[in-house]
Amino acid sequence: MQKPSIPKGTRDFTISEMVRREYIFDTVRKVFKKYGYSSIETPAMENLSTLLGKYGEEGDKLLFKILNSGDFLAKADISFIKDQKTNQFALEISKKGLRYDLTVPFARFVVQHRNDIKFPFKRYQIQPVWRADRPQKGRYQEFYQCDADIIGSDSLLNEVEFIQLIDDVFNELNIGVSIKLNNRKILAGIAEVIGTPNSLSEITTAMDKLERTGRTGFEEELISKNIPKEAIDELCSYIFTGKQSFISADYTNEDKIKLLESWLLDSNIGREGINELKEILTILSSSNPNLIIDLDLKLARGLNYYTGAIIEVKADDVELGSLCGGGRYDNLTGIFGLPDVSGVGISFGADRIYDVMEQLDLFPSEVTTSASLLIINFGEKEQIKCLKIIKEIRKAGISAEIYPDTIKFKNLKKQMDYANIKQIPYVLFVGEEEIKIKKFTLKNMNTGYQEKLSVPELIEKLQ
Amino acid sequence: MQKPSIPKGTRDFTISEMVRREYIFDTVRKVFKKYGYSSIETPAMENLSTLLGKYGEEGDKLLFKILNSGDFLAKADISFIKDQKTNQFALEISKKGLRYDLTVPFARFVVQHRNDIKFPFKRYQIQPVWRADRPQKGRYQEFYQCDADIIGSDSLLNEVEFIQLIDDVFNELNIGVSIKLNNRKILAGIAEVIGTPNSLSEITTAMDKLERTGRTGFEEELISKNIPKEAIDELCSYIFTGKQSFISADYTNEDKIKLLESWLLDSNIGREGINELKEILTILSSSNPNLIIDLDLKLARGLNYYTGAIIEVKADDVELGSLCGGGRYDNLTGIFGLPDVSGVGISFGADRIYDVMEQLDLFPSEVTTSASLLIINFGEKEQIKCLKIIKEIRKAGISAEIYPDTIKFKNLKKQMDYANIKQIPYVLFVGEEEIKIKKFTLKNMNTGYQEKLSVPELIEKLQ
Repeated sequence: MQKPSIPKGTRDFTISEMVRREYIFDTVRKVFKKYGYSSIETPAMENLSTLLGKYGEEGDKLLFKILNSGDFLAKADISFIKDQKTNQFALEISKKGLRYDLTVPFARFVVQHRNDIKFPFKRYQIQPVWRADRPQKGRYQEFYQCDADIIGSDSLLNEVEFIQLIDDVFNELNIGVSIKLNNRKILAGIAEVIGTPNSLSEITTAMDKLERTGRTGFEEELISKNIPKEAIDELCSYIFTGKQSFISADYTNEDKIKLLESWLLDSNIGREGINELKEILTILSSSNPNLIIDLDLKLARGLNYYTGAIIEVKADDVELGSLCGGGRYDNLTGIFGLPDVSGVGISFGADRIYDVMEQLDLFPSEVTTSASLLIINFGEKEQIKCLKIIKEIRKAGISAEIYPDTIKFKNLKKQMDYANIKQIPYVLFVGEEEIKIKKFTLKNMNTGYQEKLSVPELIEKLQ
Repeated sequence: MQKPSIPKGTRDFTISEMVRREYIFDTVRKVFKKYGYSSIETPAMENLSTLLGKYGEEGDKLLFKILNSGDFLAKADISFIKDQKTNQFALEISKKGLRYDLTVPFARFVVQHRNDIKFPFKRYQIQPVWRADRPQKGRYQEFYQCDADIIGSDSLLNEVEFIQLIDDVFNELNIGVSIKLNNRKILAGIAEVIGTPNSLSEITTAMDKLERTGRTGFEEELISKNIPKEAIDELCSYIFTGKQSFISADYTNEDKIKLLESWLLDSNIGREGINELKEILTILSSSNPNLIIDLDLKLARGLNYYTGAIIEVKADDVELGSLCGGGRYDNLTGIFGLPDVSGVGISFGADRIYDVMEQLDLFPSEVTTSASLLIINFGEKEQIKCLKIIKEIRKAGISAEIYPDTIKFKNLKKQMDYANIKQIPYVLFVGEEEIKIKKFTLKNMNTGYQEKLSVPELIEKLQ
């Protein structure tokens, strides 16, 4: 018989992994709720017509498609096979796909339920998504996203509150992070003032690699993308002040804003971006004076649907990509026919957060996997008493187990091993003598200390 | 543009539905944990080799298959298309499928992780499953199961504890239910003593329909299944005592057991089943004297993998099928090469439980969707103060929102409407005057009562 296995890129989560994952989900969920976000869920399977074309050509290839049920060939045009048109044939035999993220299903949800929704609409959603990426370390075909969005409000207070929310989540998890902020309008302003408004994406890509490539590599890349020499020169005259790059972390936010204000003076969209940035920073400096925001002009996050603020969070003490990202989008629901609804959203990456916490040993020791108490099962006579005791204990909200098998052939050790391996902190002995005196021996498995307690004393002790 | 929609048989869950669903999941989860069960998760996608052949021919047809990624036709033998062998061709182009239940993935998990698992192994699992059933009212293609299993122990204490656990869950949810119990060995014993040990499935199916068909229909059905006349006569001589059917609810458990003891005297397996049943009932009568168990000899639950106790739960006050079911299986992991591991498991159907609670109006009124407080947003000046106040409130663990947009064109009504529709119970006014005297007006949205409170007083009030 073949050894059972699971598909590459998917994972089982064992008990010890689950308690840690749930610690992260519970923390994120608690903070979402504290900020007034409520949960929705959407189905794992969406119509392919909902998903296709929303993630670019590359994204379309990464969608998991579900084979139609029944005689799926009967209605299919199999001429596509002869013509080797695999993609077209795929659409002949599959109408549904697994969701690729939570953002497009959310946009679909908002449009579909628009008449039942009160705007501004605040929702969070914690569900798995699926991508047919080549599996590799830290990249999975099935993983969870934790998203919160507010849609139907263009107030910058939403950006401020999301930054506060992010700060709260990582404080609760005890992860040191830097919160990076940028604004798509500033990037557009830069592209505008250097005379290449249509090369925004090429400029951002080159800026993103700047720390690795240096000035020479930066210029070479832009030349290779056919950006005119004068535009590159202007860009460089602002970006490089002496030997240092102005967009690096060595400059203060104030320095960067001051320089941008003179540089982007003639760009409406650029000035708008700067003003938004300034307002967010002003409000934050008043409400959260200790919170440090890293104004990162390289930050673009793919650019595909952000229209205003762009937010990204990285761990301070470990190189692991971004733990959280988001931003303002002005037309998310436009793809489904509901234009002009502005929103802000963020997404936490539970898997990366898990990896950071593992690497830095940040999971609190209280995060354990098991019941608080194991009652040793001496035999059928004592078992009845055990059941009565455990009923009281569980009624008090304490998690407890009885070892299901009775002690045969002196296998007490087996029961104690069970408690040890499951890291159950207390073990209770309900023997003949104990039943007589109505006091039961409680053993602390960490210290070895034993004491005789009545049931009410026991409950008090365990609570 | 096409109106966005989701596949038939799938559902979106809106905010008000989610809080109710989460109330059910949280209750079940809490009780699972109190009984010492810990959570695992398995991937949505399993290898088809894991799933196929485990649910019968009908089940195989209901598996959702996932199209292989990339050029799935390149490696496929397309001669199956010409020969119209749709099922074989499906396996040429799909290697993965969505899980159909949580039981087979659990068996796969146990075998795959056998070296890391400490037996007896107690796990719970709350995840969606997918079935390509024809969608109809109350039957979905994607739905959640809530399973708990203990594997690696043949003690009847496990059956007892599961019955207690079921009782706890439905008490917590405030749903009146009857818990039905049977034993596969008794059914096997009956088939044995009437001389038709291989017709167990036919006999059980006929018994299951007895209340509708009556004695005549019952006999006709068995004749049509080629059960010998003498066997049917013996069956009927025991089942029908006078006008009533012995297997109906009109007889006490004691009556039923007494009759079975004489009837199945010559069947080893039958006697074993009776003894198991008696032991479970004896222990329960001592630990849970008020718990009523309905010994239901018709109960079979498909029979496919149960080998001992069979458990089923139905709502008392509404006809809605079973809310929970389970039983003892002796060879679940055998299909994956790990024989002789006995276990017991149960599964709660969250959707049916939801429907019962809706119909009987059992959701507690505290199950609400929203933040406890909305702070009215008067303007940019007051906003800063609002942010400081809300930070304190959230720090105290209270869920609160600021209306993100400021009051323009006297739209206070819009903000109050928002609180009303979201059923936010309190609204706070942070106006110029309030900021001066450091007391803020809190309005109870249900009673209309207003009072001026300092921030600490406010927090105390809301906690």
